[in-house]
Amino acid sequence: MAKKRIVIALGGNALQKNGEATAEAQKKIAEEVGEAIANLSNYYEIVVAHGNGPQVGNILIHEENAATDKAPAMPLETAVAMSQGQIGYWLTQAINNAFLKDGKNKKIATVISQVVVDRRDSAFKNPTKPIGQFYSAAEAKALAKKNGWTVKEDAGRGWRRVVASPMPVDIVEKKTIIELLNDDVIVIAAGGGGIPVYRTKVLGRLKGIDAVIDKDYAAEKLAELIKADIFVSVTAVPNAFINFNTPEAKALGRTTVKEIESIKDFGYFKAGSMLPKIEAASEFANQGGIGIITDIDHLKEALKGKAGTIITKQRML
Amino acid sequence: MAKKRIVIALGGNALQKNGEATAEAQKKIAEEVGEAIANLSNYYEIVVAHGNGPQVGNILIHEENAATDKAPAMPLETAVAMSQGQIGYWLTQAINNAFLKDGKNKKIATVISQVVVDRRDSAFKNPTKPIGQFYSAAEAKALAKKNGWTVKEDAGRGWRRVVASPMPVDIVEKKTIIELLNDDVIVIAAGGGGIPVYRTKVLGRLKGIDAVIDKDYAAEKLAELIKADIFVSVTAVPNAFINFNTPEAKALGRTTVKEIESIKDFGYFKAGSMLPKIEAASEFANQGGIGIITDIDHLKEALKGKAGTIITKQRML
Repeated sequence: MAKKRIVIALGGNALQKNGEATAEAQKKIAEEVGEAIANLSNYYEIVVAHGNGPQVGNILIHEENAATDKAPAMPLETAVAMSQGQIGYWLTQAINNAFLKDGKNKKIATVISQVVVDRRDSAFKNPTKPIGQFYSAAEAKALAKKNGWTVKEDAGRGWRRVVASPMPVDIVEKKTIIELLNDDVIVIAAGGGGIPVYRTKVLGRLKGIDAVIDKDYAAEKLAELIKADIFVSVTAVPNAFINFNTPEAKALGRTTVKEIESIKDFGYFKAGSMLPKIEAASEFANQGGIGIITDIDHLKEALKGKAGTIITKQRML
Repeated sequence: MAKKRIVIALGGNALQKNGEATAEAQKKIAEEVGEAIANLSNYYEIVVAHGNGPQVGNILIHEENAATDKAPAMPLETAVAMSQGQIGYWLTQAINNAFLKDGKNKKIATVISQVVVDRRDSAFKNPTKPIGQFYSAAEAKALAKKNGWTVKEDAGRGWRRVVASPMPVDIVEKKTIIELLNDDVIVIAAGGGGIPVYRTKVLGRLKGIDAVIDKDYAAEKLAELIKADIFVSVTAVPNAFINFNTPEAKALGRTTVKEIESIKDFGYFKAGSMLPKIEAASEFANQGGIGIITDIDHLKEALKGKAGTIITKQRML
């Protein structure tokens, strides 16, 4: 039987769950992820689309605070590319090493990925995604003037740069990713939601733009484009919950796009956290696939339909 | 006729030839490289293995000077991975855009690459490759103690960290790179000489190690492993020279491994500059391939045998 094709969206926080941001600490957690991925590869063609929130945040802090004329700071879009190299390397190596336990030598590839956004996406008119470090009001306003940034006060904690979070439209490397899956390669792609690029009016040339694409939306778009069977958003909890953190809390198990639509606006799902996962999984289900939300420990069972929040268009029996 | 397979080693300085290190300036130069690569792709399967000297140097300066407990500095091996993402993104986009001129939509992929070195390589006993910024003697010695670095005084200019520059032994992603070439994808790989890793005694697990692999040696090793027909080291001059910068200067045109062997030790070829290019091209020729040294402007003619320094085992007619 042909292997099912899955896209796994992996939270960027997943590699820093104990709060340690050293390369060593993050590599150690990557090893657990590597084991889980290796365990699935007999049954699935796998793409891992990881987040990069804390990692790209630290890159930006370093780039901006230690910039000189001779060593200028890299812009956000290039910093995303750097984080794809960084996290992709850790994950590639971890998956490689997980296979060695079984004496196997599997092919794994991190593909640097550009994700196309629409320059007219309304997100560019109203940037809302805070990135990088906190500044005083005066610092923030000076940087805004100097670099053309939009800056905003962040919940009493200080001022930060905010950037647009546009929707993914296309993934430049989609055909390469399909070739790799057909060649039995485990692929790490669309890291950090992808390097945001848009197509200019001249020949549709690609051009980078400072923005942050939600990694769940980007991973879902990739899942559609490569005709995956299953989209899984791997997060810190085994299921999405209704009334999370209250006595009425109820884990969502098998559910349908219609049910999700009917409860989505009740405020159960936190914006920027569970909401994009729910929306991505539900959108994928609406296109005819299976959308799953779970944590790394329940991933294998969830793929068997025995754990996690599983969203389909028709009710599963 | 089947396309010939070539590996192009591209100097990391190539993207900063005007001394400007902003992302914008480097992307602009990447466009010229993109044009050259796109022009060749009708006739060749292409892997580009770029250097990363100035880029990884700047990453290290930023990582180290702006490190905090919450945002610790990434080690050299991870910084190499970051530079692969950075430069790979710029080159991928530039090649993509070059094809759009002809209305083509070619597949291009940057593959994050781990290059295996031998932990017992004598280079680890005597680190010589300076990296990152200059320090005072006191600073350098304090950092050496804190981080376990080796530091050395650098030609009167101050103190710097030095790391080992071991020889490449294997490239973890070689099979993936072959699959991609077979699938008609232009590949960017082994950037910066590759992320240095070694195989531990336990199961041969991969582990990163702070070192710098010469990008010409790494690219030549890759060319061998993927059974390329031609290895080209693209540098700032159209040919390798004998008596460079003297009235007796003579450009080397077509030559043989034997001739190179007979003049190699005369000091014509500068260590860390032309020497590794000569050695890499000559080694590739000794394995039966064609080794070329030239600049980007003469690349196309050199591949036709009409420019550049061309090294073969048997004398060409």
